[in-house]
Amino acid sequence: VRRVPVALYQDSEFWVKIGGAQEKVVRISIIGLGLIGGSLGLALRSALQDCIVTGWDRTHESGVQAQARGAVDEVAPSLAEAVRPAELVVIATPVMAVRPILEMIAPHLKEGAIITDVASTKTHVLEWAQAVLPSTVSFVGGHPMAGSERHGIEHARADLFRDAVYCLTPLAGAATDALETLESLVVAIGARPQRIDAMTHDAYVAAVSHLPFVVSAALVHQAANAPAWPEMQQLAATGFRDLTRLASGDPSMHMDICLTNSAAIAAQLHELARFLDEFAEHLQDTEFLARFFELSREQREQWLHNRQSR
Amino acid sequence: VRRVPVALYQDSEFWVKIGGAQEKVVRISIIGLGLIGGSLGLALRSALQDCIVTGWDRTHESGVQAQARGAVDEVAPSLAEAVRPAELVVIATPVMAVRPILEMIAPHLKEGAIITDVASTKTHVLEWAQAVLPSTVSFVGGHPMAGSERHGIEHARADLFRDAVYCLTPLAGAATDALETLESLVVAIGARPQRIDAMTHDAYVAAVSHLPFVVSAALVHQAANAPAWPEMQQLAATGFRDLTRLASGDPSMHMDICLTNSAAIAAQLHELARFLDEFAEHLQDTEFLARFFELSREQREQWLHNRQSR
Repeated sequence: VRRVPVALYQDSEFWVKIGGAQEKVVRISIIGLGLIGGSLGLALRSALQDCIVTGWDRTHESGVQAQARGAVDEVAPSLAEAVRPAELVVIATPVMAVRPILEMIAPHLKEGAIITDVASTKTHVLEWAQAVLPSTVSFVGGHPMAGSERHGIEHARADLFRDAVYCLTPLAGAATDALETLESLVVAIGARPQRIDAMTHDAYVAAVSHLPFVVSAALVHQAANAPAWPEMQQLAATGFRDLTRLASGDPSMHMDICLTNSAAIAAQLHELARFLDEFAEHLQDTEFLARFFELSREQREQWLHNRQSR
Repeated sequence: VRRVPVALYQDSEFWVKIGGAQEKVVRISIIGLGLIGGSLGLALRSALQDCIVTGWDRTHESGVQAQARGAVDEVAPSLAEAVRPAELVVIATPVMAVRPILEMIAPHLKEGAIITDVASTKTHVLEWAQAVLPSTVSFVGGHPMAGSERHGIEHARADLFRDAVYCLTPLAGAATDALETLESLVVAIGARPQRIDAMTHDAYVAAVSHLPFVVSAALVHQAANAPAWPEMQQLAATGFRDLTRLASGDPSMHMDICLTNSAAIAAQLHELARFLDEFAEHLQDTEFLARFFELSREQREQWLHNRQSR
């Protein structure tokens, strides 16, 4: 049992805010102990005192590993038992598992509990939470803009969220306290909370995150399915390696993201396809090429600069 | 003056092979002292003895820096003087500068000299060499598959070519000796020589190198020109950073590559555009998505594996 470092929060009665519980020990439950769930466990346990982190994973082995690595205090024998005493429940599963998890935990949630997730898309998640959860709990969607092409509890680390933007999308009707509490926790683990509505979130990440991983896999697909690939691959160097890094990410996560953000991703794909076709008509156009490559470089450098100085 | 470490080469009379010169000192001239020219200078000077590396650059400052960093023994006051005594001339400029350089040096080349370049495309370079150079010299195109988005002599390093594939494309009529000599030098600087014809080279690099950098810049272009970019950029994270890394490369190098490999790049761009449009129709197709992301990951992992074990 660790003490809540009260100074971290505006409210010295932090544990009272979480679920209005009278006890002094905050119980946090993490469902899904992969890279993100495990890292959240490590980060929360190192940032907070007076809390007990309970974990649950569909595979026994991940639970054992998470406990051995110190990502959770204990592993619950069932979903129901994992969430029953929890003031805060974090669903850290692939997005397509969120709805069945919500359905399974809904009858067992404590009154006043805060429920959040970490999925890469938010519109469907909020719809499911609206449809499934009782009105006695507060749902605030979450999406930490951090990750890795490596997944699994073995790659979890407490500093995964350091300086990362952490999107928070409260469901209409969530208690204001619930959002503020999550913001405090996000700050406590070193990340930067950002309130955003689900549709806007999904449109933005389609451009800066989902389009890149589809393109990354498409570059591998196109090269590796060329008849000359056995010889051609000898010439692939660091540029190819970096541009295709995201193609080594978790296929089921990428699939889930496509399934739950289809419209926004389709719009991005068609826009890029149109641009590439148009670009192919300008490959002898010195002025166009110079302007394009110079501007793109400037825009990227400006983004890197903004990112470092924020 | 450094001695040629004779054991590095099959032929103990290495310096006689280079240009059939009778003197014991080999003179190498590097035209263009940027990242590649400077790194070649550092690598050759550390690998070879009994050679003098002379540099030339259109900017005085790069010459001064190259000499200060030990990338060249001396800086020539003119192109003519740089190449006149040289048994080996390396043109390490952007590809569009290769033709004017060839024209300027042609009248001053020593009989039997070997001329090579390091440009990213080879078809046009070989055409220019054929049109411009006297038949008394041998031209063998070169392309080290190494580089960085950082350019300039200040980023040059002797180990830039370590384990990199180094393509060699001899012009019809080049002396066999010339190709073998360059192969020895490529091995001496730690790279892996690969003979390939110019058309094949250009088609391969269009897929594994040129398409990636165009796509990288296009991803920046599409995101940064979206009306919501000022807010959206907050959500761009490591995936966006890595996929757009090549957009920070030298704009003029990218432009030159597009201008000299238009047909192969256009084919790659149209193929990718078609695929992205088609992919957008499958964003609700679980089976298609699972197969695609799993296969792309496998193909990339296989490539990484082949690359590490070669």
